[in-house]
Amino acid sequence: MGRWQPDSQGRLQEAALALYSERGFDQTTAAQIAARAGLTERTFFRHFADKREVLFGGSALLKERIVAGVAGAPAGDGPLAAVARGLDAAAAMMGEFRRDLSRQRQAVIVANPELRERELAKLADYAVAVADALRQRGVGEAQATLAAEAGMTVLRLAVQRWAGGDDDQDLSTIMRDSVADLRAVAASG
Amino acid sequence: MGRWQPDSQGRLQEAALALYSERGFDQTTAAQIAARAGLTERTFFRHFADKREVLFGGSALLKERIVAGVAGAPAGDGPLAAVARGLDAAAAMMGEFRRDLSRQRQAVIVANPELRERELAKLADYAVAVADALRQRGVGEAQATLAAEAGMTVLRLAVQRWAGGDDDQDLSTIMRDSVADLRAVAASG
Repeated sequence: MGRWQPDSQGRLQEAALALYSERGFDQTTAAQIAARAGLTERTFFRHFADKREVLFGGSALLKERIVAGVAGAPAGDGPLAAVARGLDAAAAMMGEFRRDLSRQRQAVIVANPELRERELAKLADYAVAVADALRQRGVGEAQATLAAEAGMTVLRLAVQRWAGGDDDQDLSTIMRDSVADLRAVAASG
Repeated sequence: MGRWQPDSQGRLQEAALALYSERGFDQTTAAQIAARAGLTERTFFRHFADKREVLFGGSALLKERIVAGVAGAPAGDGPLAAVARGLDAAAAMMGEFRRDLSRQRQAVIVANPELRERELAKLADYAVAVADALRQRGVGEAQATLAAEAGMTVLRLAVQRWAGGDDDQDLSTIMRDSVADLRAVAASG
């Protein structure tokens, strides 16, 4: 973010989510987002490559954090415990984002098939990277892939629950509860 | 399938997969598929709405079978055990498909981002239906969704392993092994 316009990125994000919610993602233009934020279209494109990037912009960094969490897990951690460290890292990063904006983001994505598929593809991409990190820890092929995929499912559901929730539970707590739910499900008869 | 042209659907499927593999999905037309199968384009459209349906045509029936497997599981089955019954039903249906054609189908989908996203969306749709069937069995919200999503991950990975494998293991065995892998992962430290 340039220092010439403090928090313009945040203002653009807020304006974009409001417009996507009000009139739909497809019907919103970058120019409208900029106008709503009281900024120029040029400023919009200084911060985002396109209007989709407002929704998916932090995803490369999030992936890095998750993979670093998995790779940095203590040697004694099993596959799911290592994945849970990555999820903790994700929760720490995503939990800083305003919950009302996360809720808007979820609603916009759910309402648009193309964005929904894009979100699933993003998580599939994370899963590939996490499985790779697990294999480097010596986890076998099948278990690495399963643990990674199950972990990304936990991530998605926990964020949905957090964004949609009315209570004050923070994302880290919900994430850990969801990992515990996964363990309970797998241990069930 | 009409009795006037025995196995024309199978011939079209085989021709389509061969062409998708050779020249790519986007570069193949329905007319070319029909010609390769020695049939008319009109016959193609009697069997398939479009060239994508050659790849995704059986998916509504497969979903029904999976959901019926889950819904029909003995009352004492826990969530993952019930999902495993649905996966058994899927393996029974998909395992009848020729493995060499399944392998071609997988390769075509992996090579095309749009088809890959479509495949993920299909599995997400199955997961919603399976979670619903679990809730009707009295499974709680979070565990129903997690068990359903994890189950669809097992399905995807097992089919990949089966289609890509050089051994003679049948899909049902691989599916059960994969469920066992999921249990092992979740039970790990």
